[in-house]
Amino acid sequence: MSASTINLSDPMLSQDFATVFARLKPHMAALDVFLRSQLASFEPEIRDMADYCIDTSGKRIRPALVFLSGWSGGEAPSESVVRVAAVVELVHLATLVHDDIMDEADLRRSRRTASRQYGPEAAVLLGDALFAHALHLASQFPTPEVCHAVSDSTRKVCAGEIVQTLRRGTIDITREDYFRVIDLKTAELFRISCFLGAKLGGFPPLFVEAVSRFGRHLGIAYQIYDDLADFFGMEKRIGKTLGTDLQSGKVTLPLLALLDRLQSDDRALLVDEILRRREPDLHHRIRQMAELGIFNIVAAEVEAELTQAEGALASHTDMTPVPLLRQLCDTLRFQVRNLQSPEGV
Amino acid sequence: MSASTINLSDPMLSQDFATVFARLKPHMAALDVFLRSQLASFEPEIRDMADYCIDTSGKRIRPALVFLSGWSGGEAPSESVVRVAAVVELVHLATLVHDDIMDEADLRRSRRTASRQYGPEAAVLLGDALFAHALHLASQFPTPEVCHAVSDSTRKVCAGEIVQTLRRGTIDITREDYFRVIDLKTAELFRISCFLGAKLGGFPPLFVEAVSRFGRHLGIAYQIYDDLADFFGMEKRIGKTLGTDLQSGKVTLPLLALLDRLQSDDRALLVDEILRRREPDLHHRIRQMAELGIFNIVAAEVEAELTQAEGALASHTDMTPVPLLRQLCDTLRFQVRNLQSPEGV
Repeated sequence: MSASTINLSDPMLSQDFATVFARLKPHMAALDVFLRSQLASFEPEIRDMADYCIDTSGKRIRPALVFLSGWSGGEAPSESVVRVAAVVELVHLATLVHDDIMDEADLRRSRRTASRQYGPEAAVLLGDALFAHALHLASQFPTPEVCHAVSDSTRKVCAGEIVQTLRRGTIDITREDYFRVIDLKTAELFRISCFLGAKLGGFPPLFVEAVSRFGRHLGIAYQIYDDLADFFGMEKRIGKTLGTDLQSGKVTLPLLALLDRLQSDDRALLVDEILRRREPDLHHRIRQMAELGIFNIVAAEVEAELTQAEGALASHTDMTPVPLLRQLCDTLRFQVRNLQSPEGV
Repeated sequence: MSASTINLSDPMLSQDFATVFARLKPHMAALDVFLRSQLASFEPEIRDMADYCIDTSGKRIRPALVFLSGWSGGEAPSESVVRVAAVVELVHLATLVHDDIMDEADLRRSRRTASRQYGPEAAVLLGDALFAHALHLASQFPTPEVCHAVSDSTRKVCAGEIVQTLRRGTIDITREDYFRVIDLKTAELFRISCFLGAKLGGFPPLFVEAVSRFGRHLGIAYQIYDDLADFFGMEKRIGKTLGTDLQSGKVTLPLLALLDRLQSDDRALLVDEILRRREPDLHHRIRQMAELGIFNIVAAEVEAELTQAEGALASHTDMTPVPLLRQLCDTLRFQVRNLQSPEGV
């Protein structure tokens, strides 16, 4: 569960994040209890499958955004805040389950993906059931606002995934396309997590709007980092198969940057490899990226988004959630730097 | 669109259904206009895909249930009734899209399935997007009640599909298992369609409850009919590949009835065929079914459910929707009989 997925004594872990996470411990514990309690409402046959997915959920970044965006001190979270945190996490888990089918990924947080564990057919339906349950929880609020926001975000997340899937194995993708896709598929759920957290926390509309913008830019930054980690990460630390994007013909920002900077002959070879879906040589590509300074180019894009995220909060420094949200930015900076540690490449 | 999917001059079409359908024409037209108007809210890349699915939707039985359960005369339907009809239809279309991936089906209403047309990966996400849009529409009502009911039903539909998928290629399924699965995967959405229609129509709680029970039994009857049609239908009329259930190792009521009645040697051969997922001989099985009177046995089960459906309405014969809902039962009876017409077997 969440507490055990992050080892607080890990020297590689950002001190900032450790601090933030320590403060969120009671919140995450309440979320775990709540998610566990939901398993009973699934039909017996799929309870274990749902449990398996909840267990492999990773860092629970989106619930953390809900909790932090509505932060007003360290008190135990209200039931409605925990419920919203569960909603965004379940939507995220549902998309992961479906995403891993597309990617034919083997590992997720060092465990077999649901698709590998139960087969892609059951995984399609399991994702549906998790998603339906998320919306069911969202519909338990007295007004339809949460349901409205969450279903709209989910639609955007799906649209982003579809556009990405349709573009696989093509190089017909611009930098603008890439940013549009990650805005839809990742940033949207980050944004709505912040929006709902601040809203439930009773913050004024201007701050709710600011923190939503913060969430969006943090989400874009996070996805660029994630795409960078697919080339430069360490499998053991990231807990998933490296090179999955390249393998599946997904053209992400590091690859776009490489295509931009390769000599025309080398570029033609890489284009041919992508278009013909030929088995890629990951290590060769990483070497090329290292030679051409791709890491720093992409890391600068992460930084640009983090700067925008922090900028969104600039006029609200007196608000309780702001210092904690800023620490999340520093955590991501730290994680980007960590990718280039000696064991990283 | 719906009007064109049903040829009212078709001599095979039940007169009852033709009458009911003619009365629903303005409602279905309003639904079509509404569904079309929704396409604009999908991202450009998936608009055509969504349009394709809406086009292949078939008879729109669930919207018909919404309209008929709230019937109060022939006036044009209110915007909220049309919206609910769209919600249940979109949930249904989403499950069809995912269902056809499982079934590896080629045809649906005489057209290629979305999975065949766009690939299973895009189909997974397209189903998600349709489903998310359904919930988004549901969340536009002033209270979260519609969202609550629809998300709960969807969860049950998914659970039914999962249980069915997990049982594929096994014979570890009883009559009770079969009924539980179809209760979840089909009857639930019929039930909720009737529930929401009557509720929005402003009918008293007792009638809403009665019509919900009607919907549930009609749904069970319809699914048994559908499973029977997979063996005894005519591909051209049903518009989908026959024998799909047998091919994919799905043990439905006709096959359960056959297993029950075969001599032990023949039974062992059929069990072996299912367990080893060997290529089935559909015509041989249909011949066996004909010899053992399986058609009549299964048709009697349809009839039993239709009787229960009508029974649910017995104390409410003064209510406007009742005669029309009863005509739906007669329509299904007619369709079952039609399966055995000369060209049917």
